[in-house]
Amino acid sequence: MAKEGITPRAQDYSQWYLDIVRQADLADYAEVVRGCIVFKPTGYAIWEGIQRGLDERIKATGHVNAYFPLLIPKSFLMREAEHVEGFAPEVIEVTRGGGEELTEPYVVRPTSETIIGYFYAKWVRSWRDLPLLINQWANVMRWEMRTRPFLRTAEFLWQEGHTVHATEQDAERETLMILNDVYTDFVEQEMAIPVIRGIKTEREKFPGALRSYCIEAMMQDGRALQAGTSHNLGQNFARVFDITFTDQNNTIQHAWTTSWGVSTRLIGALIMAHSDDDGLIIPPRLAPTQVVVVPIYRNDAERTIVMEAVQRITALWRGKLRFRIDDRDNLTPGFKFNEWELKGIPVRIEIGPRDVQQETVAIARRDIPGRPGKSFVSQNGLLERIEALLSEIQQSLFDRALAFRDAHMFDATTYDELIAHVDHGFVRCYWAGSTEDEKRIQEETRATIRCIPLDQPTEAGRCVLTGTETTQQVIFARAY
Amino acid sequence: MAKEGITPRAQDYSQWYLDIVRQADLADYAEVVRGCIVFKPTGYAIWEGIQRGLDERIKATGHVNAYFPLLIPKSFLMREAEHVEGFAPEVIEVTRGGGEELTEPYVVRPTSETIIGYFYAKWVRSWRDLPLLINQWANVMRWEMRTRPFLRTAEFLWQEGHTVHATEQDAERETLMILNDVYTDFVEQEMAIPVIRGIKTEREKFPGALRSYCIEAMMQDGRALQAGTSHNLGQNFARVFDITFTDQNNTIQHAWTTSWGVSTRLIGALIMAHSDDDGLIIPPRLAPTQVVVVPIYRNDAERTIVMEAVQRITALWRGKLRFRIDDRDNLTPGFKFNEWELKGIPVRIEIGPRDVQQETVAIARRDIPGRPGKSFVSQNGLLERIEALLSEIQQSLFDRALAFRDAHMFDATTYDELIAHVDHGFVRCYWAGSTEDEKRIQEETRATIRCIPLDQPTEAGRCVLTGTETTQQVIFARAY
Repeated sequence: MAKEGITPRAQDYSQWYLDIVRQADLADYAEVVRGCIVFKPTGYAIWEGIQRGLDERIKATGHVNAYFPLLIPKSFLMREAEHVEGFAPEVIEVTRGGGEELTEPYVVRPTSETIIGYFYAKWVRSWRDLPLLINQWANVMRWEMRTRPFLRTAEFLWQEGHTVHATEQDAERETLMILNDVYTDFVEQEMAIPVIRGIKTEREKFPGALRSYCIEAMMQDGRALQAGTSHNLGQNFARVFDITFTDQNNTIQHAWTTSWGVSTRLIGALIMAHSDDDGLIIPPRLAPTQVVVVPIYRNDAERTIVMEAVQRITALWRGKLRFRIDDRDNLTPGFKFNEWELKGIPVRIEIGPRDVQQETVAIARRDIPGRPGKSFVSQNGLLERIEALLSEIQQSLFDRALAFRDAHMFDATTYDELIAHVDHGFVRCYWAGSTEDEKRIQEETRATIRCIPLDQPTEAGRCVLTGTETTQQVIFARAY
Repeated sequence: MAKEGITPRAQDYSQWYLDIVRQADLADYAEVVRGCIVFKPTGYAIWEGIQRGLDERIKATGHVNAYFPLLIPKSFLMREAEHVEGFAPEVIEVTRGGGEELTEPYVVRPTSETIIGYFYAKWVRSWRDLPLLINQWANVMRWEMRTRPFLRTAEFLWQEGHTVHATEQDAERETLMILNDVYTDFVEQEMAIPVIRGIKTEREKFPGALRSYCIEAMMQDGRALQAGTSHNLGQNFARVFDITFTDQNNTIQHAWTTSWGVSTRLIGALIMAHSDDDGLIIPPRLAPTQVVVVPIYRNDAERTIVMEAVQRITALWRGKLRFRIDDRDNLTPGFKFNEWELKGIPVRIEIGPRDVQQETVAIARRDIPGRPGKSFVSQNGLLERIEALLSEIQQSLFDRALAFRDAHMFDATTYDELIAHVDHGFVRCYWAGSTEDEKRIQEETRATIRCIPLDQPTEAGRCVLTGTETTQQVIFARAY
């Protein structure tokens, strides 16, 4: 039985997604600003949780935050050949300021390698200045033709790390450390979304990078979502912007740089990985509100008794749980239950006059709807019980997503098998094809190589397309 | 005896400011992006402290964060008559996207009343939707001719609160609550800068506001810096964007809105309120690093002994102090002392081999340079001693700034007195002049009315310019 206002996933996954965004009050379309959305408070609070978790990890691994200009001279973008090809078609241009035409136009940053490269060239002098480990939280813009809230919008929010190193190995170590210790750890531990770590093919890599690493997550329709990327830029940007340093032998060398980012797309990933036909589901560690308490009463006398109990019980929670008490007087409990289910609050506590008398409460877990997820427990030891339940829900969401992915991961040995499976999940296969072959497969199946997983088989096999023997496996999938 | 690289305040205050910005490594000029700066890590970390302190207070007073588009249709800005006059001359315009001319140009937000007003009109329907209490952390741009790092830059970072209320009283209460409980409390308690609360004159108010409240701080050259503003917008923007609601009597009414903001200017205020000729001084509550530990040794054996003590001592500090251990091997202690003085770390701890033996350390406080600020104490109870010292420094910086302000606050009864004093501080005087008079005084003295203080005298007096009797006092000052 579907909830009002939410199209069931099985019926229309794409519409289901848009319904969740609207019903959970996460975003609004900014129809007056092409391709943009408003991040409404409920949606932005999720982003604040993502920021907090990532920022902690970014700092714990030795990085500091800074802020670089929004506008980039258009000519900067044109300096790196691949980079210009990748980004020039979708830039937003600033041509007037203070009522006058500008002699040199700016673009609104689509990404900041170029402008940051310019400053790093000024700041880096000696090997003693390295590594330079800086991150930026910022808005970026790309002119997108087809937009979807959170997944693809003209303006989005992200963090972009930009680092400089003395050697290729140092840059490579940084690139992988971010992939593992920051992105994978955050997305799996806090967002409860299992990811596959891998390298992008030449065709899919970041414009201007030597190597792009990524984490790919499976959504509930079997499609892939790139949840984060970490690029070893080699010396490409260092050459173009002349980022050089004097090494310990007093020789001037070009530096090695990296860049890495995750964005508000992660909110889209969160929705599509966990939510159900009743609304959003937020993993407890990330949830801005972990527990909502709904007092139940029919008159002022009952209200007084119940609210007294609510205050007494929740007094113990301060600083330990993120909770709210929904004491709005003009709404029925049923309306409130529905609203908090839509908004994905992990745990709901209900207390009525009888509960007060019996020193009990009802607990409902969001990840298991209806009766099966509901229990009636003593108020005694409630905090510990809720804390344990939140951990259980966190783990259960991860396990469920992992089981789903396992069930939708197919091994293909022929192109026909690839075609047969790629509409329903990830296809893992041996691959020795060319960039042209990749392009052809995309045209025929709408699937792309999401990554060459870091976990590779020990035995060789035959390429799914060409039959050539190879030890390299890749993951094909249709992607967001 | 001036420090190398810092022009003494007494010699050239303006150059001193720029020297502090450079020597403390707070910002870099973005000469390739007109009027912009890079917020370098040391400077940005101060902004992060400001964000943390403000965000806590903004949320504690019932507001939530959201994010609205960077770009605003140019036509939106033109709808409110005063607003367009105030902002149109300094907008940055986006005219091309995706390689094509736009049919309707956008401006990069100089402030977001218009675009947010557009959405609020969609979201607000009934009195039950009110108050709507939203804040946004964002970058904004204004085309500025004369820029100074932090104080006036084309792009800057800020928070802007935008709220909607059912009645004029509610809007007025919100406006004052933000001024008192958020801005004044934060700036005085965390930044240790005393402020004067007041109302702007018609000439100085926000374009489109009914009434603008502000907090004004005195810098060490006697000039004023507007540290935050809170505007009661009346029904002006509600009328222009048609923000209406159905009240409890089922009548449709225009809502009342407010907006309020503080920006990265506060970093400029911080520098100019507290710092000295040795560098930056950051109040302990705001300081990203409160304590720096400098181990002192001449060889590896000493290093081992000293570092062991440092680790043992600081192990107790985790989670209680924000500290760093400066164990860089290639630099002398003297070099390190100088660097941390320049960067304004409130407390420095020195430990050498003899200290280890005697179970002592040396403590140097940044706000009292040289010998007088240095003491030698037992390692026993060091954490408590440091915590007490940080509180003492926090209070002492506030007291010092307040004493400075008191010493540079002049009461003028004649225009000649006003002229005589206004180059050296704030001039408080009775005022019954016109907007034209204000303009003339600015042309003659470069001073403006900073505010009509909320604290007003009980007795009437004669206007400093016209001699008319009035009960209204104002503050004149030259302003940043």
